[in-house]
Amino acid sequence: MTKIKPKILVTNDDGIDANGIRVLIAEMCKLGEVYVVAPDKPQSGKGHAITIDAILELKPQKVTTEGVVKEMACTGTPADCVKLAINEVLTSKPDLCVSGINHGSNSSISVIYSGTMSAAIEAGVEGIPAIGFSLCDYAKDADFSQTQKYINKITQQVLTHGLPDGIVLNVNFPKISEEPYKGIKVCRQARANWKEKFDKRTNPIGKEYFWLTGVFENLDAGEDTDEFWLQKNYVSLVPTQFDLTAHYMIQKLNNWKLNE
Amino acid sequence: MTKIKPKILVTNDDGIDANGIRVLIAEMCKLGEVYVVAPDKPQSGKGHAITIDAILELKPQKVTTEGVVKEMACTGTPADCVKLAINEVLTSKPDLCVSGINHGSNSSISVIYSGTMSAAIEAGVEGIPAIGFSLCDYAKDADFSQTQKYINKITQQVLTHGLPDGIVLNVNFPKISEEPYKGIKVCRQARANWKEKFDKRTNPIGKEYFWLTGVFENLDAGEDTDEFWLQKNYVSLVPTQFDLTAHYMIQKLNNWKLNE
Repeated sequence: MTKIKPKILVTNDDGIDANGIRVLIAEMCKLGEVYVVAPDKPQSGKGHAITIDAILELKPQKVTTEGVVKEMACTGTPADCVKLAINEVLTSKPDLCVSGINHGSNSSISVIYSGTMSAAIEAGVEGIPAIGFSLCDYAKDADFSQTQKYINKITQQVLTHGLPDGIVLNVNFPKISEEPYKGIKVCRQARANWKEKFDKRTNPIGKEYFWLTGVFENLDAGEDTDEFWLQKNYVSLVPTQFDLTAHYMIQKLNNWKLNE
Repeated sequence: MTKIKPKILVTNDDGIDANGIRVLIAEMCKLGEVYVVAPDKPQSGKGHAITIDAILELKPQKVTTEGVVKEMACTGTPADCVKLAINEVLTSKPDLCVSGINHGSNSSISVIYSGTMSAAIEAGVEGIPAIGFSLCDYAKDADFSQTQKYINKITQQVLTHGLPDGIVLNVNFPKISEEPYKGIKVCRQARANWKEKFDKRTNPIGKEYFWLTGVFENLDAGEDTDEFWLQKNYVSLVPTQFDLTAHYMIQKLNNWKLNE
């Protein structure tokens, strides 16, 4: 009896040709039957956008990696890719969805802006175990050489244990230095924000415009956060949910004078 | 001594000319000094997208409502509007940010796709008390006539009590029927999804393309959810957080073999 290989959907937000997704595809091919549906162009910062006011196209790609069953570029957002993959490419739910490896951090507050994590969350909403992987290095030619063994380990654990309904994993890797990663830490999302600074310019005909720039600001002194452990060269793993209810606030709000 | 009026930022995702935001602006003018910075075109379904690969412009609008200090249309997403408003229009943090009234529901899982709620969440990340208001009626000429007194009540309560760091409110109004709303219920977000169905078509030169469509599916039988109470003609109020950590999962994941 041959063991049935798990069906794995791979996507990202940097686009189907990014180095990060290539590393992830190669790693997934060791573990299952791989389907790739990823954006045809970079979609960073697109959050959980979906396309409701334009058409979507799927463009079949030449498969060059052994173990990949199908590879499609999609004109939409990362969340669109997952929806289209399930409905039109695999025509059934995969056993796992992985997204990334993102070129850049998706730790702490970046999770809410992240196309990488939105794809994973979209899969989670559909009831599919899902993991987003990101490397804290924005370079196009970033070094992913230490990530593979951790991706393999985390993915195998998810395939073994599954994930409860409503949970996806947000995995971030420190930027690679000479020192090897120290291990994996299960953490909570740090309270942080991007302190934006708008670069105000004037166009050739005298009209003002802005470029959004910003500096990351960690507002959280906790020693159990993703930022804390990434700084110490650990891989951070945050169990992430899409039930955004602040349950502890419900009773408090019931004491307000809302129905008087 | 005159009481200082609170500074209120009003935004939305349907665009600055939508009827919903006009109702909200009028209501806020009763409570404070109003600044409006809203998208120059509809931005529905844009999630928490931010614009990092294009320029942003602010277009001053003619102020026609008494109580409005400034009104600007912005070329970006709802989250961009909030960032630009704080940094370039108000040049200081407002006392409150309200977003909406959205033409369409942002209850249950719709919160993660919602530009309306992303604007409110963006304000929350910046430490500003924030509320998103949505009406479960997608029509452009939707009837908002029952929403005002509830908007006034909820906003006054937020101005009185404030909101803890990390919390924003997601308020949804049932589509207006002959029966008046029964009151406000503090709820949790229902577990639900959009069961998408892609409408596959062929263009005039024979190429396939897709339109994303879907049907809402409530997977949650709980009697404490937003969907449950909206169905019963109550206004739903969900305390919403942007710490996506599933704290209860941390210990469970520490029992996995992640570092062996």
